[in-house]
Amino acid sequence: MSEQGDNAPTQDEQQPKENSTPEKKEIQENGTGESEPVADPEPPKEMRAVVLTGFGGLKSVKILKKPEPTLAEGEVLIRVKACGLNFQDLMVRQGAIDSPPKCPFILGFECAGEIELVGEGVEGFAVGDHVVALPEYKAWAELVAVPAKYVFKLPEGMSPQDAAAITMNYIVAYILLFELGGLSKGKSVLVHSAGGGVGQAVAQLAKTIPDVTVFGICSKSKHEALKASNSPLDHLLERNSDYIAEIRKVLPDGVDIVLDCLCGEECNRGYAILKPMGRYILYGSSNVVTGETKSFFSAARSWWQVDKVSPIKLFDENRTLSGFNLRRLMYQQGGTDFVKQVVDKIFHLYKEGKIRPVVDSTWALEDVHDGMQKMHDHKNIGKIVLDPSLEPKPKPATPAKGKSKEDKKKQPSEEKKDCDEKKVENGKEEEKKEDKKEEPLTNGESAGDSDSKEKENSN
Amino acid sequence: MSEQGDNAPTQDEQQPKENSTPEKKEIQENGTGESEPVADPEPPKEMRAVVLTGFGGLKSVKILKKPEPTLAEGEVLIRVKACGLNFQDLMVRQGAIDSPPKCPFILGFECAGEIELVGEGVEGFAVGDHVVALPEYKAWAELVAVPAKYVFKLPEGMSPQDAAAITMNYIVAYILLFELGGLSKGKSVLVHSAGGGVGQAVAQLAKTIPDVTVFGICSKSKHEALKASNSPLDHLLERNSDYIAEIRKVLPDGVDIVLDCLCGEECNRGYAILKPMGRYILYGSSNVVTGETKSFFSAARSWWQVDKVSPIKLFDENRTLSGFNLRRLMYQQGGTDFVKQVVDKIFHLYKEGKIRPVVDSTWALEDVHDGMQKMHDHKNIGKIVLDPSLEPKPKPATPAKGKSKEDKKKQPSEEKKDCDEKKVENGKEEEKKEDKKEEPLTNGESAGDSDSKEKENSN
Repeated sequence: MSEQGDNAPTQDEQQPKENSTPEKKEIQENGTGESEPVADPEPPKEMRAVVLTGFGGLKSVKILKKPEPTLAEGEVLIRVKACGLNFQDLMVRQGAIDSPPKCPFILGFECAGEIELVGEGVEGFAVGDHVVALPEYKAWAELVAVPAKYVFKLPEGMSPQDAAAITMNYIVAYILLFELGGLSKGKSVLVHSAGGGVGQAVAQLAKTIPDVTVFGICSKSKHEALKASNSPLDHLLERNSDYIAEIRKVLPDGVDIVLDCLCGEECNRGYAILKPMGRYILYGSSNVVTGETKSFFSAARSWWQVDKVSPIKLFDENRTLSGFNLRRLMYQQGGTDFVKQVVDKIFHLYKEGKIRPVVDSTWALEDVHDGMQKMHDHKNIGKIVLDPSLEPKPKPATPAKGKSKEDKKKQPSEEKKDCDEKKVENGKEEEKKEDKKEEPLTNGESAGDSDSKEKENSN
Repeated sequence: MSEQGDNAPTQDEQQPKENSTPEKKEIQENGTGESEPVADPEPPKEMRAVVLTGFGGLKSVKILKKPEPTLAEGEVLIRVKACGLNFQDLMVRQGAIDSPPKCPFILGFECAGEIELVGEGVEGFAVGDHVVALPEYKAWAELVAVPAKYVFKLPEGMSPQDAAAITMNYIVAYILLFELGGLSKGKSVLVHSAGGGVGQAVAQLAKTIPDVTVFGICSKSKHEALKASNSPLDHLLERNSDYIAEIRKVLPDGVDIVLDCLCGEECNRGYAILKPMGRYILYGSSNVVTGETKSFFSAARSWWQVDKVSPIKLFDENRTLSGFNLRRLMYQQGGTDFVKQVVDKIFHLYKEGKIRPVVDSTWALEDVHDGMQKMHDHKNIGKIVLDPSLEPKPKPATPAKGKSKEDKKKQPSEEKKDCDEKKVENGKEEEKKEDKKEEPLTNGESAGDSDSKEKENSN
C-alpha cells in the first residue's frame, strides 16, 4: 500500500501561484505535463483529480493537480461533492476495456455535486442545481465538465453521497430486473456478487415487487455484514458452495432470472438453475476478454467467454440470454434518453422511500487506492464513495520513505480547513470523520492490510 | 389433390351398427385397427377424426372413424365445434418434431366446443361450458378428452370459431410481445410471416400499445389481401426484397423487437436491424433441425441453426436472444399456469374489442388437406379453421377414380343432414355454405390448384 502515499497531493489547490515549487515539478515529471501553465500572468486555476498515468496496478493511479476544465457547448460544469467507484473503474485502470483513452486521463464515471456553470445550448439546468452525472471518464475530480445528456437533477432531499451511491448501480439493477428480466409478482432472482453495489441495488429493487424471492451469492466472509446491513436478500448463499442444490431445496423448478456480473466469479452453474421462460443476463462494465493482464482478470474466463450458445437450444429450452453494458449503451449507442427514463423511475422510488443507498465506505480522493483495493477484493458491502472534501487518512509510519510522506502531510493546507468546515455543515459526516482517524469508515478494515484480512472480516 | 377424396368418411357416425359393412373394413385395412369393436352386443360409439397414418405428405392424413374417447381422471370431454390449424401441425405430419407419437394418431393441438362430460377430480368446469382446449394431439375430432389444465373457458360472446382462431396464435403473440419482447409505448416490431395467424395476432396486439410501429414481411402476393383485411401493420415489406434498407428509411436506428418464426423463411438479416437493447426472438412450434425429410423443411436451415451466438457479443451489443416454444412449455415444462394467465389477458382484450380474430378460411375435416396445403404455401391471411359440422366440398370429377368417389358420396347420410341443420342454426355460417359449393371460403382459391395459383392470389 505504500504507493498511495506517493500520490497524495503535495500542494494546495487554492495556491496556484506556487506552481513553480519543486513539488509541482516532481508531479510534472510523472507524466502530466498538461497541467503546466503556459503563461505566468494568468495561470489557469487548478483542481485535484484522480489521474491514471498508465494502465496497470494501483501505482498508476495518482492524485494530481490539473487545470480546471473549460466548458464546451452543451456541457455543464459541476463542483463535485461525491464520486461513485464502480467495478468498471478497475477494468479501466487495468486497460481491460475496448478503446481506452490515452494515459494520462482523469478516471471516474460517476459524480454528484452542484452546477457551477451552464454552457451554451444547455436547457433545463441552472447554476446551483444539485445533480448527478455519468460522464465518460473525468468524474473523479473537484470539477468536471459534462455533456448535459449525462446529467440528472437530484430529487429534493437526496445528498450528493446518496446520489453517487445510487445512480449507476440502480440504473444497472433496474434495467436488469425490469427491462430485461421482466420481474413481476412471485418471480425469483439469483444475483452473484450480492454484497456489491449492484447486488444491493438488485435486492432492494426486486423487493419493491410483491412475493419476489431473491437469492444472493457472495463469499462467506460477507454474510454477517450483509445481514447486519439489513439486506433484503431472502437467501444468502456461499460462493464456491453447492448453491445450486440449496436453491433447488427452496425452488425445485429453478429461478426466473439469473444475473451474472461478468466479474470473474464462478457463475457457470447459473444457467442450469434457470426455469423454463427464464432469463440469463450478463452484465458488467467492460469487455473482460481483451484485458487479461493480471491473474484477477484472467480468472474471469467463464463459460460465456468460451462457449457459444445455440439459438435452437434457447428455443428448445424456452430461455433467454441477454447482455447489458451500460457504458456502451450510454457512450456509444445513444441510449441516454432511455437511461434518463430509468433514472426518473429510480429517483421516484427513492422519494417514496422504497430504496435507500447502501454506502460501504467513503474515502478521500487521496485514498482512492484503498477503495479500489477493497472492491477488487470483493470486500465492500454496498457502494464505495469518494469525497473530494475529505482529508486523507494518516499513513502508517514506515521507516525512511514513510517519514518523508509524513513531512509532506504536515504542510499546512487551506484545503484541509475547507474540508473540516464542510464536514461541520454536513451533520451526517460527523461520525465518519471520527472513524476516519483510525481507519476507513466501515467494516473495520484498514487499507494497508486488505489483502490479508479476509477471515477477520467475516465477524 | 386426389388423395383427399380417399379419406372422406364412407359411413355415418350415427350408425354404429353398420360397423361390419364393406366400407368399414376398407378403412380398417388402412391401418386403423384400433377402431375395431371387440364385442358385437355393445359396439363403442364412433366419431370422425383426422388421423395421421404415417409421417410424410398429405396422403398420410386420413379422415377415419375412431372410437369415442373415454374420459380419464382430471379430463373433460369436449364436443368439438371448431379446430385451429397451426404450423406445427405441418411439422408433426412431416415427423419434423422431437419425440413424435407413434402413428396412427389423431392430429391437432387446438379445438373449441362444449363440455359434454366432466371427469373425476376436475374443478371449475361443468357440462355445457363453452371452452377452448390445447391438448397434446387429438384435437381434430368430433370429440376430444383433454386434461383440464389445457382447457380454458370462453368469455361470453366468443364463438368456437373465434376461439379456435384466437387462442394459440394470440398466446404465442402475447408472450412474444409482452413477456419476452417487453413491448411498450413507442417501440417497434418486425414480424416475419406477417400474413399468418401469429403474424396477424402480433400486429393486433402490438397496436394495443400507443405509438408502436409494426413492420410485417410477407410475399408480395399477399400484400393486397392483407391491406383488404384491415391489418394494422404500419409497413408491409416484401420478402426477398431489401427490406432492411426499407426499415432503415423509417427507423434509422433499427427496431426494438424482431420476431423470427423459424418457419423456413429467410430471416438472417433480422439480427442486423436490431437496436441496442433490442431483442431477437425465435419462436415456432417444433424442432425443425431434426426433421428435414422434405425440401420445404430443409429450406428452413437459417442462421440460428448453423451459427452459435457468443454471449460476449450480446453483452457488447446490448442485445437479447430468446427462444419460445409453446409446445414444450405446455406439455413438457409445466407452463400451463403461466399460459392460463396469458389466456385470461387475451380474452379480456377480446371482450374489450381490442382484438378480433382474422379467419382465413374454414374447412370441413375432410378438406383438411386443402387447409394444410394453403398454410404450407404461406397463402393464408389469418387462421385456418376446421369445422367438423361442415360438409366436404364436392370433388372435381376425374375419370374412373373420381367416379367411384362420387358414388360413395351419394350414399344418403344422416350426418349431412345434421350438418345442414347446424348451419341453419348458426346464421353466420350461411354465407360460407354458399361459397363452399364452389370453393373454400375465402381468397378465391380452390384446393386443387393451390400450387399453381400464387400469382393470381395477389389480386
